[in-house]
Amino acid sequence: MGNPLSQYTLEELRQRRSVKWRHYPDDVLPLWVAEMDTPPAEPIRAGLADALSRGDLGYSTPGGTLDAFAGFAAARYGWTVDPANARLSPNVMLGVSEVLRHVTRPGDGVVINPPVYPPFYHYIPDSGRRVIESPLVRVDGHWTIDLERLDRDFADASAYLLCNPQNPTGVAYPREVLLAIAELAERHNVRVLVDEIHAPLTYPGVTHVPFLSLDTAASRRAIAFHSASKAWNLAGLTTAVIVGGPEAGRDIAQISEHFGDAVGIFGVLATEAAFAHSVPWLDSLLLGLDSNRRLLDTLLRDQLPSVGYSQPDATYLAWLDCSELGLGDEPAAVFLERGRVAFNPGGAFGKPGAGHVRLNLATSAERIEEGVRRMVASLG
Amino acid sequence: MGNPLSQYTLEELRQRRSVKWRHYPDDVLPLWVAEMDTPPAEPIRAGLADALSRGDLGYSTPGGTLDAFAGFAAARYGWTVDPANARLSPNVMLGVSEVLRHVTRPGDGVVINPPVYPPFYHYIPDSGRRVIESPLVRVDGHWTIDLERLDRDFADASAYLLCNPQNPTGVAYPREVLLAIAELAERHNVRVLVDEIHAPLTYPGVTHVPFLSLDTAASRRAIAFHSASKAWNLAGLTTAVIVGGPEAGRDIAQISEHFGDAVGIFGVLATEAAFAHSVPWLDSLLLGLDSNRRLLDTLLRDQLPSVGYSQPDATYLAWLDCSELGLGDEPAAVFLERGRVAFNPGGAFGKPGAGHVRLNLATSAERIEEGVRRMVASLG
Repeated sequence: MGNPLSQYTLEELRQRRSVKWRHYPDDVLPLWVAEMDTPPAEPIRAGLADALSRGDLGYSTPGGTLDAFAGFAAARYGWTVDPANARLSPNVMLGVSEVLRHVTRPGDGVVINPPVYPPFYHYIPDSGRRVIESPLVRVDGHWTIDLERLDRDFADASAYLLCNPQNPTGVAYPREVLLAIAELAERHNVRVLVDEIHAPLTYPGVTHVPFLSLDTAASRRAIAFHSASKAWNLAGLTTAVIVGGPEAGRDIAQISEHFGDAVGIFGVLATEAAFAHSVPWLDSLLLGLDSNRRLLDTLLRDQLPSVGYSQPDATYLAWLDCSELGLGDEPAAVFLERGRVAFNPGGAFGKPGAGHVRLNLATSAERIEEGVRRMVASLG
Repeated sequence: MGNPLSQYTLEELRQRRSVKWRHYPDDVLPLWVAEMDTPPAEPIRAGLADALSRGDLGYSTPGGTLDAFAGFAAARYGWTVDPANARLSPNVMLGVSEVLRHVTRPGDGVVINPPVYPPFYHYIPDSGRRVIESPLVRVDGHWTIDLERLDRDFADASAYLLCNPQNPTGVAYPREVLLAIAELAERHNVRVLVDEIHAPLTYPGVTHVPFLSLDTAASRRAIAFHSASKAWNLAGLTTAVIVGGPEAGRDIAQISEHFGDAVGIFGVLATEAAFAHSVPWLDSLLLGLDSNRRLLDTLLRDQLPSVGYSQPDATYLAWLDCSELGLGDEPAAVFLERGRVAFNPGGAFGKPGAGHVRLNLATSAERIEEGVRRMVASLG
């Protein structure tokens, strides 16, 4: 099978109705929001086409979806998931909100690590909880958790929303960091919620360690959020999986029986087809993404050497430190205006995002080259 | 175009993954939950197939969906909708919950009219509000609002969740009833939320009067909930439309910008294709449903004359009073156990549902005949 990232022309992609392709005018090259320029994996396409032909557009049933996820987790991460302790959710953030309602109280503090996925800043207060920022630090050019800072921030918190692999930095935390987090969480009686939506996009040679696969008190009470939406480009079908640790069963059971009402049947069918039958497609995608993350490295070294970039361990996201380009706190605005290339503005990811942009690698090599050309042109 | 209700065989329908076809074993004839045994309308099928072929599975944009709904509302109901005062929602009940958060306070009373759509009983308390039951009454065999009772119940309420056309009774309230409701709502300062999800399924010769099309103080502040999900069988794609009256703009504007995050791209595309291009399909569907509601009348008169049934003004739902059959408060349980036919148990619709079942007419004539045969067999 060919590289899924080079199957569509620009003209074909511009026919899409999704946010990535509709938000900006046609002269802007969109390398921003987390959508991939890929066709669906064949088992997903065939499954949805079959559903369409049998008019199967009614209320969803989970069917074998949770079992398919458990099978994938076992094969891919060596992690044993009990489907009886898992639930479907319309998406990760609605799942996080629902779980926060059960494991914390109104006004409680929830720790996050900026720079981080912007909706963390919205859904926590929308759930009546308080955001506590515990920024990541950069050590030898790589982002990681500041464990001393986390220790202090946990003192005032009842939950921790960890993102691993991390969006936007692409870091996959090693086991020893996760074990240190678990120890701090236990000491401070902080419940760990872990967004692992990018886990299937971990590059060859790197290991994704599911937090719930640790043998610790904190991980047994933790709750993880997974989805096929990033790795198989299904964001628009809105389905995620909530998994409880063996001692979080009561919290999972408390999830309202109506919570799944907005889980769509196409999302369920696509999610099952992804986890059960679309791993070869994922592996071919990762080859293409791996090539792209290296290509970007070469292009930046050659043409924009002052831009800070560490190749991600996972995700198709490149977190670029553009602060030495002299474009101010939001270089994305300058790239958009002068170069007609769209990235995610770093500021949306929290204060440490100033001077940064997030670039989406899930496109063809040619379009990445064009994106860098447009960055260079912006400086002219 | 042929009758959409007779396009699939039982064997084909049993391949579906939806709740209607998966909840019960294969020897049960499922005539329950609100799904139709139809293929998708051709513009919907073609639109989703095109999206699949261009890999258009990313985050949704509303595109022309709200304009398409406004065009349908103008042509079908003579009702002018301002798309700027409308929003997409993942489904009607999540929209109701979100609006209740803005127009009422925790602990406030919300009036509903049982027998009524069971989720009304769950989403109102889940939103921290209090259900006030103001039961419908039967006058000359037809269900309607008890306006004197409503007057009393409004005294303790801040909102009213009206269902029109009504689920499960199939009643479409005439203009004078809606005007009387509006007057009571104004007098008691009660905000009206109106679930009009079944409106496109109003039968020829009956008029659906959108509450927001009235020229009253209460309707100008009202908020309506629409969807293509019932009339075009799209429940599994989870999309609805929230429309504010001209003086409810501030409430619509208060809806969280993240509220639409779970609106799926296939739902948006199908909803647009339904309202903009699938009205001929709807009209052919209504011919088939009209024939089915009459067929059921004939069958019941012949074979089960003690069952109370008024043909619905709208909806594909038949609300059957089985209390004279001597099967107890939940005849659906007896029909399921003895007759192997599944209806919705009346008790879920509130106390006045005792002794009733809700039958789904959106299937072939043969399957309705078989359903009645199985009811008769249950009595044997």
